[in-house]
Amino acid sequence: MSPVARQPGVVQAPADAVFVAEQLRPYLEDLLAREQAAWTEQGAPWPDPPAALLAYLADGKALRPRFCYWGHAIAGEGTGPLLVQAAAALELLHAFALIHDDLMDGSDTRRGRPALHREFSGQHRAHGWAGDPDGYGRSMALLTGDLAFAVASRIAAGLPGPAQRVWREMVDELVIGQFLDLAGTARQDRSDAVARTTTLLKSGRYTVTGPLRLGAVLAGLDELPSDLARYGDLVGEAFQLSDDLLGVFGDPRRTGKPVGEDLAAGKPTQLLACAADLLPPHGQALLALTGTPGFSRSDIAELTDELIWCGARDHVERKARGNVEAACALVDGAALPPGVAAALRSLATAATDRHR
Amino acid sequence: MSPVARQPGVVQAPADAVFVAEQLRPYLEDLLAREQAAWTEQGAPWPDPPAALLAYLADGKALRPRFCYWGHAIAGEGTGPLLVQAAAALELLHAFALIHDDLMDGSDTRRGRPALHREFSGQHRAHGWAGDPDGYGRSMALLTGDLAFAVASRIAAGLPGPAQRVWREMVDELVIGQFLDLAGTARQDRSDAVARTTTLLKSGRYTVTGPLRLGAVLAGLDELPSDLARYGDLVGEAFQLSDDLLGVFGDPRRTGKPVGEDLAAGKPTQLLACAADLLPPHGQALLALTGTPGFSRSDIAELTDELIWCGARDHVERKARGNVEAACALVDGAALPPGVAAALRSLATAATDRHR
Repeated sequence: MSPVARQPGVVQAPADAVFVAEQLRPYLEDLLAREQAAWTEQGAPWPDPPAALLAYLADGKALRPRFCYWGHAIAGEGTGPLLVQAAAALELLHAFALIHDDLMDGSDTRRGRPALHREFSGQHRAHGWAGDPDGYGRSMALLTGDLAFAVASRIAAGLPGPAQRVWREMVDELVIGQFLDLAGTARQDRSDAVARTTTLLKSGRYTVTGPLRLGAVLAGLDELPSDLARYGDLVGEAFQLSDDLLGVFGDPRRTGKPVGEDLAAGKPTQLLACAADLLPPHGQALLALTGTPGFSRSDIAELTDELIWCGARDHVERKARGNVEAACALVDGAALPPGVAAALRSLATAATDRHR
Repeated sequence: MSPVARQPGVVQAPADAVFVAEQLRPYLEDLLAREQAAWTEQGAPWPDPPAALLAYLADGKALRPRFCYWGHAIAGEGTGPLLVQAAAALELLHAFALIHDDLMDGSDTRRGRPALHREFSGQHRAHGWAGDPDGYGRSMALLTGDLAFAVASRIAAGLPGPAQRVWREMVDELVIGQFLDLAGTARQDRSDAVARTTTLLKSGRYTVTGPLRLGAVLAGLDELPSDLARYGDLVGEAFQLSDDLLGVFGDPRRTGKPVGEDLAAGKPTQLLACAADLLPPHGQALLALTGTPGFSRSDIAELTDELIWCGARDHVERKARGNVEAACALVDGAALPPGVAAALRSLATAATDRHR
């Protein structure tokens, strides 16, 4: 059906990639073009946030729409407008989460480019506008995140009842996860329980399990089968563990994100929960300094080395790999339509083998 | 029916106040208690944001629920669960707007108390937590605002289709209005058109016209009658004009809000749009300095005086009063059930005669 798939001599694009390129992207472009038109009609002479949001959404791997697509493929055929709508809501929810997350963390880069608040402050400086450029950048990013969430909520409200229930739970989990991240950082909590809940709620659930569930209920299932829900949580957790590892040991030129920030803040990650068990006294002393103004760049480098030596990095890497293996075994054992198991296996790897 | 109304010898409380006290408040308390329980079930050991939100909502005059109540009374009898639900969504939307607005403006007080981000930073300092207290306060407030909006959207998604349409338009207008406020400040826009659109969209519509419409469609009307929509926009605009005046000429001890911030920032208010026409050269020179770092406390005081002398304050005061009079004339001329016209007249005055 798709132009991509029909080209002779070209390897057939995966069905989820075709879905994203041919259905989701045009839908999002149209949606935000209409949003921009609505702004102009309301008398807003400068409809910047819808334009900024569209540029923001053009980027990224569309992982959540792809999981949603395969969740739907478990029980349904084809795609249909509701699936596109759900996928768009997921992308907008993700944009909202990233934009507000970068604001909360004060992160200045994302996907190898300035974070949205930095883009807006740059625009302010370039025009020589009035007021504080950084304050303007933060406010505009906050508002663009709000817009993303408003449009996501509006679209989600048009989904059938069971899908709305999944959506509500996913949004609630995301907010709770973000809060645990903040509160655990402030309290320098090193418990494994808080770290695991944070990992799952702040990203794992809305990245993998939630989108799978959303797709499945849209295809008419009462609920996602339990082995696939387990697959989702395993892959979702591994996704965030990989992200945590990249945030400490990654190469910013490849990840497009800053390195060492999570460590300097002392975030409640499973890596640091594990380190609290394994580190020798010198490492423990460094760990106790995270989140304090005295924690220097050289302390970050030293603690990074200590996390390798004490085995915490290996532990988290093994856990992420083990999750992916267990998840793949689950889909192999499940009775799934042809192609779905292979797609879920390949997506589990794509989601956790992350360079950006 | 109400304990307030039944007390012998006590003046009967207005029906909207009874609605707020006996139906809306218990509903919000129950809603946020359940939200808090959901957080604990999800493994969040510190469910601070739902608690903070409940405390935040306990305050305020519940103007939006009251307009919604009277919008419903135009065509319906009694109240019913959907009206309570809509009123709760309005209060949560307002909390979201205030919390994020205070963050964007960097305002430190609200309702005579520290703004929410200041409350959270105070909590951080009191506990001696890790990291920057102000950054924590801002992040927590941002997230609590997100929670308010998430819960509001969830409740609104349960309303019938026509009410959802009104809700969507109201949310869109609010976001556009907030953006115009930011963008007009950065651009130091002094056009009357931008100032009027900002006034209406950033607060007038979601405070008066939107709630009236929401109530009316919940009572079964296709749309709010046009004279009442006009009433809503007139009162909504007057509401924001009064707020603008208080932000420049108010007494912070009575308003509970800081004074002079709008002027220092050079916000795109109708007051400054009018001043741009009326100010003599010295005042114009001061006006040109708003939004720059060189604009001092004594410049604020001087420009405040200039706004009085040039007649800009009088102009805006007259406009606000004129709006309320015209709005009251409209309800007097409309065919309304007994009591509704009197209530709308009294609410128009309450909304614009503001001390806090």
